[in-house]
Amino acid sequence: MKYLLVVAHGSRRAESNDEVRELAAKLNKMEHGFDEVGAAFLELAEPLIPDGIISAIDKGATEVVVFPYFLSAGRHVVKDVPADVESVKEKYPHIKITSAPYLGESPKLLDVILELAG
Amino acid sequence: MKYLLVVAHGSRRAESNDEVRELAAKLNKMEHGFDEVGAAFLELAEPLIPDGIISAIDKGATEVVVFPYFLSAGRHVVKDVPADVESVKEKYPHIKITSAPYLGESPKLLDVILELAG
Repeated sequence: MKYLLVVAHGSRRAESNDEVRELAAKLNKMEHGFDEVGAAFLELAEPLIPDGIISAIDKGATEVVVFPYFLSAGRHVVKDVPADVESVKEKYPHIKITSAPYLGESPKLLDVILELAG
Repeated sequence: MKYLLVVAHGSRRAESNDEVRELAAKLNKMEHGFDEVGAAFLELAEPLIPDGIISAIDKGATEVVVFPYFLSAGRHVVKDVPADVESVKEKYPHIKITSAPYLGESPKLLDVILELAG
């Protein structure tokens, strides 16, 4: 079972966290190579990233792809999210846990911006 | 002269601000309906949003589109960026200054995420 975990920073504002959960729910309904899609947060909202990964494993995931829903390669993307991922990998060495490039890295964002600004 | 101003939060980390400036520079080289593209920040980096808009007007812009490079519709997108835009509109009533939908609002992000995570 292949699981996609969308991870965001997390906000004190519940609506912002719900936006991320809704994004994961929309992805869940789309056609792609993942059996399930969920959301997790670095801080301020639940589930936290390690809990999100472990929950996916408990559901039967043998492969978890962590997707950083961040625009810039700041400390969170470079250090904090990878540290959370590593902490779970050590406990579950038989599960394939990988990280995808963060959102801001996609050159497709340029087209998305032009379409919105058009 | 039609100007696109990409506005981001701004970070204490210079590299994050440079990522936004580079994004604007890339957009500047693409084919689209804008004569020039620049970047501005809500806080922590320069130019601040009002200065970015005024600088565009000083360069000859008669129309400025402000694009919020934000993932969630938090206070910054709902209140702070619009307040900055309004403050300049009051001073330059003859210039057309509008705001585009923020990045996180685009349904195209779903495809971008799946491509990165794929």
